[in-house]
Amino acid sequence: MTTKTLESLFYDTLKDVYYAEKKIVRALPKMAKAAQSEDLKAAFELHQEETMEQIERLEQVFEIIGKRAQGKTCPAIDGIIEEGQEIMSDYKDTPSLDAGLLAAAQAVEHYEISRYGTLKRWAEVLGLKDAAKLLDETLKQESKTDESLTKLADKHVNDKALRKAA
Amino acid sequence: MTTKTLESLFYDTLKDVYYAEKKIVRALPKMAKAAQSEDLKAAFELHQEETMEQIERLEQVFEIIGKRAQGKTCPAIDGIIEEGQEIMSDYKDTPSLDAGLLAAAQAVEHYEISRYGTLKRWAEVLGLKDAAKLLDETLKQESKTDESLTKLADKHVNDKALRKAA
Repeated sequence: MTTKTLESLFYDTLKDVYYAEKKIVRALPKMAKAAQSEDLKAAFELHQEETMEQIERLEQVFEIIGKRAQGKTCPAIDGIIEEGQEIMSDYKDTPSLDAGLLAAAQAVEHYEISRYGTLKRWAEVLGLKDAAKLLDETLKQESKTDESLTKLADKHVNDKALRKAA
Repeated sequence: MTTKTLESLFYDTLKDVYYAEKKIVRALPKMAKAAQSEDLKAAFELHQEETMEQIERLEQVFEIIGKRAQGKTCPAIDGIIEEGQEIMSDYKDTPSLDAGLLAAAQAVEHYEISRYGTLKRWAEVLGLKDAAKLLDETLKQESKTDESLTKLADKHVNDKALRKAA
């Protein structure tokens, strides 16, 4: 019983993240197009490629547990992405658009970090070593992306601050 | 212009987090009531108190910028909390309920960590030193809560694993 329900929680959460990643992969090109600075555009384009790899890793995890890869509506990512879209429309053509886009992207990253951290832990306790390894790979990639976005955000606000002081 | 729009982004995000904290403060007692283990109940109750402090700090930040404290619908937290409610109903009376609740709580924490990190950075660049200090205080508290939840989750799954092996 215990195993069965932790397994079903793992499977449900896997479907949730699979839906989320597919939603993110569709949102990123719009964010890249909207971004004003070249380095932010490049960061979104790179993350688009990484997200495609992450989707493939999830498909491998579905295969490991012998289930068909499928998504399950994830209201959390729907809400996070909706907020990003609001920023894109409310701050269009303003000097703060990139700051808002960076904040939206970091909210996405943190959601994923929490989900992959959880999935990795559950995979370990379920004895799914190969799945845990795949999930850890993505977790590390997401953490690295979040760090890069933090650096970009620091650079971005400092540039703005210098411009203001000039 | 630059200052004005970063200020308005700061204000908008402050309203978003204010709404989120008020929603969290209402969700936590339900999560505490649902939790099966005493240590998870206690963790949610402690975080309930901390969230009330965090709301007060946000009210101080509104005061610093001379604006009325008010919330703005935040679809991200609505979605994250909706997922927590789904877990509570789908996994009610199952041995995996606490694992699911822990995962939901960590998704909430990570959303807040991303938001407070962003707000703190913007407060600094806007020269709002006292606001930045208040936001940093909450950011550190949220990170600490996330670490405690990780420890609880590790303990929880290990207990389950031991029980399974026994």
